[in-house]
Amino acid sequence: MNRMFRKKQTKQRPDAAAQLLMDIVGEENVLYLKEDLISYECDGYTMERGMPRAVVFVRNTQHVSDVVKRLNELGVPYIARGAGTGLSGGATPLGGEVIISLVRMKRLLHLDLENRKAVVEPGYINLKLTQSISDKGYYYAPDPSSQNACTIGGNVAENSGGAHCLKYGVTTNHILGLEVVLPNGEIIEIGKEGIPDQPGYDLLGLLTGSEGTLGIVTQITVNILKNPEGKKTVLAYFDDIDDASQAVSDIIAGGIIPAALEMMDEIAIEGVESAAYPVGHPRDIAAFLLIEVDGIAAGIDAQIDDILTVCKSNHVRKVKVAKDEAERSLWWANRKMGFGAMGAISPDYLVQDGVIPRTRLPEVLARINAISRKYELRIANIFHAGDGNLHPLILFDANIPGESERAAKAGSECLQVCADVGGSITGEHGVGIEKSAEMHFIFSDEEMAAQTAIRHVFNPHDMLNPGKLFPEPGRCAEVKQDMKTASV
Amino acid sequence: MNRMFRKKQTKQRPDAAAQLLMDIVGEENVLYLKEDLISYECDGYTMERGMPRAVVFVRNTQHVSDVVKRLNELGVPYIARGAGTGLSGGATPLGGEVIISLVRMKRLLHLDLENRKAVVEPGYINLKLTQSISDKGYYYAPDPSSQNACTIGGNVAENSGGAHCLKYGVTTNHILGLEVVLPNGEIIEIGKEGIPDQPGYDLLGLLTGSEGTLGIVTQITVNILKNPEGKKTVLAYFDDIDDASQAVSDIIAGGIIPAALEMMDEIAIEGVESAAYPVGHPRDIAAFLLIEVDGIAAGIDAQIDDILTVCKSNHVRKVKVAKDEAERSLWWANRKMGFGAMGAISPDYLVQDGVIPRTRLPEVLARINAISRKYELRIANIFHAGDGNLHPLILFDANIPGESERAAKAGSECLQVCADVGGSITGEHGVGIEKSAEMHFIFSDEEMAAQTAIRHVFNPHDMLNPGKLFPEPGRCAEVKQDMKTASV
Repeated sequence: MNRMFRKKQTKQRPDAAAQLLMDIVGEENVLYLKEDLISYECDGYTMERGMPRAVVFVRNTQHVSDVVKRLNELGVPYIARGAGTGLSGGATPLGGEVIISLVRMKRLLHLDLENRKAVVEPGYINLKLTQSISDKGYYYAPDPSSQNACTIGGNVAENSGGAHCLKYGVTTNHILGLEVVLPNGEIIEIGKEGIPDQPGYDLLGLLTGSEGTLGIVTQITVNILKNPEGKKTVLAYFDDIDDASQAVSDIIAGGIIPAALEMMDEIAIEGVESAAYPVGHPRDIAAFLLIEVDGIAAGIDAQIDDILTVCKSNHVRKVKVAKDEAERSLWWANRKMGFGAMGAISPDYLVQDGVIPRTRLPEVLARINAISRKYELRIANIFHAGDGNLHPLILFDANIPGESERAAKAGSECLQVCADVGGSITGEHGVGIEKSAEMHFIFSDEEMAAQTAIRHVFNPHDMLNPGKLFPEPGRCAEVKQDMKTASV
Repeated sequence: MNRMFRKKQTKQRPDAAAQLLMDIVGEENVLYLKEDLISYECDGYTMERGMPRAVVFVRNTQHVSDVVKRLNELGVPYIARGAGTGLSGGATPLGGEVIISLVRMKRLLHLDLENRKAVVEPGYINLKLTQSISDKGYYYAPDPSSQNACTIGGNVAENSGGAHCLKYGVTTNHILGLEVVLPNGEIIEIGKEGIPDQPGYDLLGLLTGSEGTLGIVTQITVNILKNPEGKKTVLAYFDDIDDASQAVSDIIAGGIIPAALEMMDEIAIEGVESAAYPVGHPRDIAAFLLIEVDGIAAGIDAQIDDILTVCKSNHVRKVKVAKDEAERSLWWANRKMGFGAMGAISPDYLVQDGVIPRTRLPEVLARINAISRKYELRIANIFHAGDGNLHPLILFDANIPGESERAAKAGSECLQVCADVGGSITGEHGVGIEKSAEMHFIFSDEEMAAQTAIRHVFNPHDMLNPGKLFPEPGRCAEVKQDMKTASV
């Protein structure tokens, strides 16, 4: 007992690697105690975890370059991490990597409203950008549901989307330039001064969405937009989810591009109505659509009329237009609680993220229903319906033996369905560690080889975020073996 | 005399390489006679030329794969070519390459209006797509001035823009999927069934604009758009080009994104008024703006009012709205004659293609004027002004000794000016052979190394379009040496 007590009191000392990192960034910017590291075991994807060797908070680009070079010399792999809101395990250490945290590089460096651009550090929080320019009439378009926490650097890594990406596009459509530290420590600039039309290969597009496997982004030039002159929001309740699906197709086919076109099914509605922002949605509907139109004020009413007509011709039970900003905000707060609200109706849940051609929605929903019955697990469905981007939420209880495994299998089968109809296994959450096994659903061996060859160009020794996106089983096993012997 | 006559009659026979290509595609699909090959000496960039060893017309993807594999075995490099309208020499053989012509792969394979996409072969002509769907109310947005001749495959290679790309984006923003034959002969699909949100690296973006150096595109899925409900076009005449530039900035800063925002200066106007579609522009103005707004009908008049106000506050001499479609079409025909019209006022001209931040336009124009004086050559300016994409047209006479060289130097200095203000050396015409020497204006050695390493992944033996984009002097010299001994 006494010995145990004394053991607790013995303060863990930084190992040689942590000490060398402190020489670069200062003692106060390195975490190495087990109790400090535990928060970095996983990101928003919690099904797999691993301990980092240390966490280093960099303050500037030179720090990143110096840290990377030092870790290369030591042979210690590393991972860049933003706010840790990622949903596929992209920032989860699998083998005792050092985490390079970018959250203290969080400045807005430059604002150029005349040329509609802003330059930010990677740790700058998404929502802050819009907040800091909204009084001048501007905003930053990509709006992941986690936007009050996630960083723009993380958004670049995952090529994040959001509800309003139907009209405005995902992160890659809003990035004008990047400063990047390559895994060899070199600093490169892509799309200098925000001129995106660079000759040569599209490195800007290549880095965006590369899930932190090609380089570490240290500065980002983004495109900012003028606030739309007007905005209107419609809520439409349907008794039959196929009617709701058809309404989605008819709206798009009719030539309207809403700013957002969201769908929630019955179980998802049960969730959000049990959470922090209940709207009073009827509990006996099959689905609702939340549709927002924005743009030149004069054109909006005509588009809303067209949308109401489409809903009515698809047997909508009830449809209404938000009467004021307060009502609109409530509808959106309710929608954005979607994932978190599952906690109110299930002990655990697994979010999936597939993409399908919009017109295949009814068929895909039927197959997801069949998966739900097969695994005896409820599945809620939240969609960026206009984009064909589905989020099946598989509800389970990790305390019931076998349920986690059944949930993971059900999730994988949902992705197989998306792949079968010509879709994709991820719309906006990335592959990370969660979906690397499913990559072969949509890529041939040749296609995977082209991808991994690109990683090899930038990251030849697999020092940056190893084992992500395209796991190399040998390498992962090796890293995991190292970890067992590492003195974390 | 008699011997000469007989010599002419001796028909040139295909060499071994041409014969092997005939075995794949049939005799009628291979050109090898010098008189047939001469049309393939260059593309739309005529300052450098070279003879191909042969031209092979492929009919399908398997042909491309088989031809590539055969040429690899023979050690003969090759170039993919569309309509040959490129403006930077991307399809020009430098060392006796075989040209793989895609013009006979020209089918529209599939049209899916409900999901707004079309699948075409690479030799399909850009304008044909819009023509084939316009009666149903749809169009394909990227509209290079050469759209009645250029192919969509060529547009993908160059990431082509056009007048309406200010609002709608360039080719890469409209490509949903590609089928590609890699330089090893493997066939890969990127963005299957037109779902562009593929996980992994953005190969779709990487291939688009890679100027035919990474793979040969054999099938393209493009996004098609619904025709805008309304459209209005404004012509504004300015006495001072700085006022016109300021009007451009003010329109964009005011939150209007016109479908097109074009500028022409005095010399460019002299050209187009001397060509096929004169409008009757005053000859004594400094510049005009051609501004088009489209979208929901109800919103257009308000935008036009705002544009007229901006023009007036920038001392416009005269501004008018097109009274009907005939007038609008004439204005556009006049504008699209821009490059060709230079032939009416100068024996030769060199088109340049730089990008700058919009707000630096007055400064850049002053520097281009200085270059014009320095080299004693007139320079006309045509701009996609809204995008900051300049086309200085350097007028010269190749028959006057030294003028071609002075024109090339003046062109290069114009690009240096663009680079100096934080811009780019090409907006839409590509690098090809014309601008490879200027790549170092905007890329560091590290940045160039990252780019060439990517080429090496796809094209490790430099068999596909060698010497383009990033010339390796050693390689080019070697190829040219080979050519001298080759039996073309």
